[in-house]
Amino acid sequence: MDANRRIERTLDNAVAHAEAPGAPPRLAEAIRYGVFPGGHRIRPRLCLSVARACGDDDPVGADAAAAAIELLHCASLVHDDLPCFDDAPMRRQKPSVHAAFGEPLAVLTGDALIVLAFETLARGAARHPARLASLVGLVARAVGSPVGIVAGQAWESELTVGLTEYQQAKTGALFAAATVTGAAAAGAPPLPWRLLGECLGEAYQVADDLSDVACRQEEIGKPVGRDATLGRPNAAALLGVGGAMARLRHLVAEAVEVIPPCPGAEVLRAEIVAQTRLFLPPSLASEKLFALA
Amino acid sequence: MDANRRIERTLDNAVAHAEAPGAPPRLAEAIRYGVFPGGHRIRPRLCLSVARACGDDDPVGADAAAAAIELLHCASLVHDDLPCFDDAPMRRQKPSVHAAFGEPLAVLTGDALIVLAFETLARGAARHPARLASLVGLVARAVGSPVGIVAGQAWESELTVGLTEYQQAKTGALFAAATVTGAAAAGAPPLPWRLLGECLGEAYQVADDLSDVACRQEEIGKPVGRDATLGRPNAAALLGVGGAMARLRHLVAEAVEVIPPCPGAEVLRAEIVAQTRLFLPPSLASEKLFALA
Repeated sequence: MDANRRIERTLDNAVAHAEAPGAPPRLAEAIRYGVFPGGHRIRPRLCLSVARACGDDDPVGADAAAAAIELLHCASLVHDDLPCFDDAPMRRQKPSVHAAFGEPLAVLTGDALIVLAFETLARGAARHPARLASLVGLVARAVGSPVGIVAGQAWESELTVGLTEYQQAKTGALFAAATVTGAAAAGAPPLPWRLLGECLGEAYQVADDLSDVACRQEEIGKPVGRDATLGRPNAAALLGVGGAMARLRHLVAEAVEVIPPCPGAEVLRAEIVAQTRLFLPPSLASEKLFALA
Repeated sequence: MDANRRIERTLDNAVAHAEAPGAPPRLAEAIRYGVFPGGHRIRPRLCLSVARACGDDDPVGADAAAAAIELLHCASLVHDDLPCFDDAPMRRQKPSVHAAFGEPLAVLTGDALIVLAFETLARGAARHPARLASLVGLVARAVGSPVGIVAGQAWESELTVGLTEYQQAKTGALFAAATVTGAAAAGAPPLPWRLLGECLGEAYQVADDLSDVACRQEEIGKPVGRDATLGRPNAAALLGVGGAMARLRHLVAEAVEVIPPCPGAEVLRAEIVAQTRLFLPPSLASEKLFALA
């Protein structure tokens, strides 16, 4: 089964558990709305690519890890869009969860998705229960405090912010979790895989900054120019579009270099180059500037 | 070491992880503020009491389960107090987290506490890793959708609410988690312990309703009369103070009856009677109406 089908099927099974009889109907609806239809599912694809490169000896465990990472990504989008943060009206070409369901259900949907991520990990651990503690620890580190995405978002409430800490926590942490959990779910030592995730996380951040500066809302499905509006740092504003493109190319090249020795290294290299093309919307990805292959 | 010291020490260790170098200072402060000083720590005490009644063969695992339950309880208080829900200015005799730190950090503090709960469970699983999947599953069920505390809170966003579903999810679920995880952390089958937790959860709900109707704000550390203000069902308003007291007595007697056979059943019975006294503030607990012993 290809990666996309594995990811969508595992996410669907996970969400079905949250919708089981007894669930408040609007909460159940909001949870599904927050997960489907998805974006490019970049993080779970990366997780599965690494698991396969490491032998994929327990596909159910790897699927669970990939789904957990995507559920947490969705949770962070739902909470980041809340009125007290970005107050974003649109997400993935449709109204954001709080715009569609109201603020109380948006808070609860994010909470439920966080819980569902850990529940999904546990449910996927049947064949290799001894791997679960490592997986939960790696995922929690990427999401919570001190250095996960929650901490990344919290830097916006501080008077002084280290830009590197902010971006590493807000974007890099979940990419790093995708690579380390992919390895751990396949029984490989996870830590050598962190650097690959960090490189790709930084690359994704640069690409996201480029989209915010150089695209139209209709193409990316959410308002553009938000970083300027919200006074947030943006690599494309800082380096120019050409400079940011060069930085992106450099980061992807670096990522391909730092892949640890593993049975499927060659296939993984090709997959990473293909996946990083999805970081950018078509109008930017087609430019010669991003001629990687 | 007595139960209180075990609980406070494990909570302190867990929170210290979230405050580690790299954490945004105000988020770290808000996380500690949301956990300390605590209330009576009723749920983690119940968890440890059940673990001991089942032999407590892995105290580190039981401590982690108890702390996880309390961290999730604290998370639910922080989010329930938000402006979009109860908009509560006070909690545990001090300003609520959003009143003290602002709404963005209150959302993030709740999120971080949810993550920290699962991280704490994983960290406590060193000696018996095979028990972790069951513990994560039991805890997640109590907190998420369809029947956990998040679902309980979400019933407030529905047009029609089943009162039993609402209260069981909002209060009962975490009490049930306290008893079943206490058993699971000690290697005992968890499910026979659910009914005890559900009885005590309902008893706690009645006691909380009584406090809301019959106490002063200074005694319970949060505003009173909230149920009437917010149009929520209240057992003491429905049955009168005397009727609610009778219901509470009945539920505690039932709880003591349904304790499953276990090595420490007799001690557990006494502990439960003592712990349920803490459900009520002194002005009510001292009444002859609550003469249980």
